[in-house]
Amino acid sequence: MALDPFFRGRLIAIGGNEDKANELVVLKRVVQEVGKTEFKVGVITTASEEPEQRGKDYHQVFSTLGASKIEILNIKERAQANDRTLAKSIEDADLIFLTGGDQLRLTTILGGSRVLLAVHNRLEAGALVAGTSAGAAVFSDTMIYEGKSEEGLFKGSVLTTSGFGFVEKIIFDTHFMARGRIGRLVQIITTNPTCIGVGIGEDSGVVLKGDGVAEVIGTGQVIIVDGSDIVHSNIMDIKPGGPIAVENVRIHSLVNGYGYNFRKRRFLKPSR
Amino acid sequence: MALDPFFRGRLIAIGGNEDKANELVVLKRVVQEVGKTEFKVGVITTASEEPEQRGKDYHQVFSTLGASKIEILNIKERAQANDRTLAKSIEDADLIFLTGGDQLRLTTILGGSRVLLAVHNRLEAGALVAGTSAGAAVFSDTMIYEGKSEEGLFKGSVLTTSGFGFVEKIIFDTHFMARGRIGRLVQIITTNPTCIGVGIGEDSGVVLKGDGVAEVIGTGQVIIVDGSDIVHSNIMDIKPGGPIAVENVRIHSLVNGYGYNFRKRRFLKPSR
Repeated sequence: MALDPFFRGRLIAIGGNEDKANELVVLKRVVQEVGKTEFKVGVITTASEEPEQRGKDYHQVFSTLGASKIEILNIKERAQANDRTLAKSIEDADLIFLTGGDQLRLTTILGGSRVLLAVHNRLEAGALVAGTSAGAAVFSDTMIYEGKSEEGLFKGSVLTTSGFGFVEKIIFDTHFMARGRIGRLVQIITTNPTCIGVGIGEDSGVVLKGDGVAEVIGTGQVIIVDGSDIVHSNIMDIKPGGPIAVENVRIHSLVNGYGYNFRKRRFLKPSR
Repeated sequence: MALDPFFRGRLIAIGGNEDKANELVVLKRVVQEVGKTEFKVGVITTASEEPEQRGKDYHQVFSTLGASKIEILNIKERAQANDRTLAKSIEDADLIFLTGGDQLRLTTILGGSRVLLAVHNRLEAGALVAGTSAGAAVFSDTMIYEGKSEEGLFKGSVLTTSGFGFVEKIIFDTHFMARGRIGRLVQIITTNPTCIGVGIGEDSGVVLKGDGVAEVIGTGQVIIVDGSDIVHSNIMDIKPGGPIAVENVRIHSLVNGYGYNFRKRRFLKPSR
């Protein structure tokens, strides 16, 4: 377990509802980050309740964006997640893309499976892994999977479990401004200020390149919630359901071109 | 104009939707702050589109809580707001209560009127002025009256105008967690970090006693947004509609019994 926020490999976490019909700002950047003119994409639709439709949507987008091969993995149950052929089908993917839906479906169905191992192996081998909404939330080791926005600052209202752990001590939340989720991140950061909260707006994302630095892309905001200056909170003293007091939470709003250094906990202005 | 956040007189700002049927935690505290066993209440329902019903509701609540006299001022137009008899009817009120609704109705109808002058005079003379939702938003000199939560961090999406100015450089927003409004306050604070944002949750409030210190009451949270550490923002450089970047906004969550010193910008733990 990392003592500092940590990530390894090439990752893009997207806040959901990215444009798939017009400018494609975010998805174009995803393809650009792959860094190859011929590239293979593996799309995992497990988070969705309508995987076939979701698969078709992304097949069309990645075709438009020039993918030379696209594998759609509509994995709906654990038996499929352990299928050797399916796992093998993404062993040469340059980009693995996790669609939106419910992150608990992703962990429940793919947790400990051959397909998840294949994804981990691709990440280790230098492939790009991107995810949107649920597909980004699952990147975290401590993954938020439930919690009403308006109850975010009542103890115990935010439910978390173990995510895929592509990043450690970085908690991604998505649809962030659209759904007013800051309370959820503040609660989790208060319970352990080692963690840094990253609230990604819709049609926006963060590009992580393995050097501890995130670059923001897209048309909205990414909110960083940094608890390292927290002086006092009541969270140890109140019962579940009680309202949370906390002193000194630092937040930043980042937009396209801005960045964040997770190791130094530093806001980065555009370099250009 | 104050260079520091400032307020004078005895004020209670409530975040809306305060319990009027069961425990009455917030409204009981309002009456307790009046500090008299025999007391007269003036209720101004101008913010509401249904002033008669709102007036009846608060008449019942304040009767239950022991008011000896209650004047309901259902002022719906400027001519009434300038009525000498109506203005005179609250000249001896111990508590003036502003109901919820639309804060723009309050300023548009009562701005510059005899009734508003009477309210100011009562405040100067030591009476308690309380307001909920729109009735609290209007306390500010720079008053937020419009702005979708999900667009709070896009330049120009938050509309403000001149409020009643019972407080200066303190911006109240209400229904705060329920409606995910933090972006609205962050935008306004970014444009002028002299101001301190106070986002009041439902069934919650802040008691201001004229010494620069607020005490939090009720069952939810009050969020303080302090921009005094802001280092960088892009708000001068982007066009209206563009996404806002800002570095280092400090927030606190306060709950019942906690406080905030506006002069020292300091979080206060419960003294008991």
